[in-house]
Amino acid sequence: MNIAGRIDHTLLKPEATEKDIVDLCHEAVKHGFASVCVNPVYICTAARLLHGTSVIPCTVIGFPLGAAFIEIKMQEILAAKAHGAREVDAVMCIGKAKSGDWKAVQRDVNLMVQTAQGCGLKIKIIIETGLLNEDEKQKAAEIVREAGADYIKTSTGYFGGATVEDVKNLKNWAGPGVKVKASGGIKTKEFALELIKAGADRLGTSSGIVIIQ
Amino acid sequence: MNIAGRIDHTLLKPEATEKDIVDLCHEAVKHGFASVCVNPVYICTAARLLHGTSVIPCTVIGFPLGAAFIEIKMQEILAAKAHGAREVDAVMCIGKAKSGDWKAVQRDVNLMVQTAQGCGLKIKIIIETGLLNEDEKQKAAEIVREAGADYIKTSTGYFGGATVEDVKNLKNWAGPGVKVKASGGIKTKEFALELIKAGADRLGTSSGIVIIQ
Amino acid sequence: MNIAGRIDHTLLKPEATEKDIVDLCHEAVKHGFASVCVNPVYICTAARLLHGTSVIPCTVIGFPLGAAFIEIKMQEILAAKAHGAREVDAVMCIGKAKSGDWKAVQRDVNLMVQTAQGCGLKIKIIIETGLLNEDEKQKAAEIVREAGADYIKTSTGYFGGATVEDVKNLKNWAGPGVKVKASGGIKTKEFALELIKAGADRLGTSSGIVIIQ
Amino acid sequence: MNIAGRIDHTLLKPEATEKDIVDLCHEAVKHGFASVCVNPVYICTAARLLHGTSVIPCTVIGFPLGAAFIEIKMQEILAAKAHGAREVDAVMCIGKAKSGDWKAVQRDVNLMVQTAQGCGLKIKIIIETGLLNEDEKQKAAEIVREAGADYIKTSTGYFGGATVEDVKNLKNWAGPGVKVKASGGIKTKEFALELIKAGADRLGTSSGIVIIQ
Repeated sequence: MNIAGRIDHTLLKPEATEKDIVDLCHEAVKHGFASVCVNPVYICTAARLLHGTSVIPCTVIGFPLGAAFIEIKMQEILAAKAHGAREVDAVMCIGKAKSGDWKAVQRDVNLMVQTAQGCGLKIKIIIETGLLNEDEKQKAAEIVREAGADYIKTSTGYFGGATVEDVKNLKNWAGPGVKVKASGGIKTKEFALELIKAGADRLGTSSGIVIIQ
Repeated sequence: MNIAGRIDHTLLKPEATEKDIVDLCHEAVKHGFASVCVNPVYICTAARLLHGTSVIPCTVIGFPLGAAFIEIKMQEILAAKAHGAREVDAVMCIGKAKSGDWKAVQRDVNLMVQTAQGCGLKIKIIIETGLLNEDEKQKAAEIVREAGADYIKTSTGYFGGATVEDVKNLKNWAGPGVKVKASGGIKTKEFALELIKAGADRLGTSSGIVIIQ
Repeated sequence: MNIAGRIDHTLLKPEATEKDIVDLCHEAVKHGFASVCVNPVYICTAARLLHGTSVIPCTVIGFPLGAAFIEIKMQEILAAKAHGAREVDAVMCIGKAKSGDWKAVQRDVNLMVQTAQGCGLKIKIIIETGLLNEDEKQKAAEIVREAGADYIKTSTGYFGGATVEDVKNLKNWAGPGVKVKASGGIKTKEFALELIKAGADRLGTSSGIVIIQ
Repeated sequence: MNIAGRIDHTLLKPEATEKDIVDLCHEAVKHGFASVCVNPVYICTAARLLHGTSVIPCTVIGFPLGAAFIEIKMQEILAAKAHGAREVDAVMCIGKAKSGDWKAVQRDVNLMVQTAQGCGLKIKIIIETGLLNEDEKQKAAEIVREAGADYIKTSTGYFGGATVEDVKNLKNWAGPGVKVKASGGIKTKEFALELIKAGADRLGTSSGIVIIQ
């Protein structure tokens, strides 16, 4: 199985340097990863280095708290596209979900998806499974499905990570039109394979090179 | 000493609910804290609840990674003001500092300060001391001073926290025109007093109630 | 009748200077106009000068073509509030109306109204009657009504102006919950009175001083 | 001489429909115009239709008053790029120039140029010659030159238009690194040729088809 082709080679630490990003991109091309996932300030560098390769430049939106104004998330999506992103991983407003204000969550997710797809970007919605209970995860997945997002993603990596159980459930709840990205704590080939078997179409990890060896 | 009046009563967890924010505001008013510091999606609630009190509604910008596009940080500042913030705590672009691209850091800080002060907001620049070496801390402090920010702030709380040493140094490097906010890991009255003695004008903490008792 | 209290004292020429705006504000206070309506770059000045008076600082959004991205119009609304506006006059996307894409018009108007009211701003939607036929005017008015805007406004002043007939129709189509602002070509007291009689709650004009004399 | 290759085929009327834009793009391809210049809401359509041709999709920023907040103009530039623009024609803040606040004009122009070039867009700065005196035109041209804009452009078309004299002067004042775009009132081949002879590298006009015949 081609694991590399499912990996989003990820470096989102705030202290990552320009050089770290250059290395990340070279590794991604060398190993045939699906994408590199970097912070907004580095997406321009990544897009330039990856130009002409099959590796997708990806960045994050409202990351990692999901607690920015929706107007700002929308602008951040457009700015990401303007600077070369082809995919964005955007964090749902978790606080509104925990407050039971699902109408606000729906507006947040819908507007992000519409803005991304309106300018030709693929979008993954991060629901942060580590902070939600089962009911909340299901409700969030249904909102992501109805919004027509390209992917549902488990975690930012800051508040818990992917589980096999979550991937299976999200696959089921989000339906056949939405792919699943597992992320957070994926450090071994065994776990990566388990998550893929459970239905993960993409894996977000900073341990990609270890995993594929 | 009036410790309460120096405390920014803080709740920035992504899973914080509307009700948590309501409680936070009531506590801040009751105990006479300087401000409440909440995520953007809740600043509107905080501003409404704090209206007519002496407690300042404060929110965060580019938080906690500091790695958003400067154009987005600028908009986020305006959106914060529009929703009722009177102070903002904004994260400097740490990655550019670690890359040695101080010209980019300077542009990032200058534009945030100009935007905030241009619409009447006080601004604190978070330099994230836990991720910088001494030289980088000093260089960052000088940039904050030259930009004319209202405060320099040590930490987001995600990557290490305040130290007495850092507060002393920032006080010195940032000069008399810039106040110092210590934050991250402040959980006891003793430590709070030490930081104030070292020169901290404000303390960012989620343990305010414990500290003042 | 208090005509002055219905007049938005308006200066939107691109060549207007800071001094012109100062004069405009002083005139508005002196004569008791409802508001001053100025371009965004001057709303800060107007808000400062009008502070503590009964005159409302008002600015324009997507003006005068209405052809900006909705995301930009939303941000412009927040930026206007951040700089002191208390009312905004926002131009509907006329091109989408003329294209028969009413779903896009509805999204445009809804998002502007939600953004303005979400940060405590009153919003007037300009439908530019001079460029629409009767069917289009009615459809636009219904969209403005459903969106819950505070006012429907006839014109930017660049492409024809208010008519008594239009004011009557808009009053009727937009319903009792939406006020009507007439604007464009209002230069005499007689015409002003006719428009008020027809149902205009506000008049946008740069001839306010002439009209009230 | 290839006049067509210097023409920005322009349709900026607010009432332009989707179909008008489709026709405009087809004409531009057929006649080999340099670009099509349309309002932001249509740049996505233009970019799609022009994909794979030599015609450049171009849109406008802060148009036509130049009186939007600089933060909004910056975002509008990024949004334009995100939706497929490859060139933008951005209006300088005329009111600040007329107020003699050249520092504000410089900041306005610099930030627009930096934002555009930072995401790979060519930018033309419209100084609106019809509203400036000779001293103001020269000062504006020098600011555009120092900012490193790709072009200086005479007019929006709303407040007077291009003159041979202005083109010559702008060519001289803006220096060899900045191209000149003449626009406003260009309706005949004779005038087009005169402007080109005077130094115009591009012509903005809605009469392109008439001019080249």
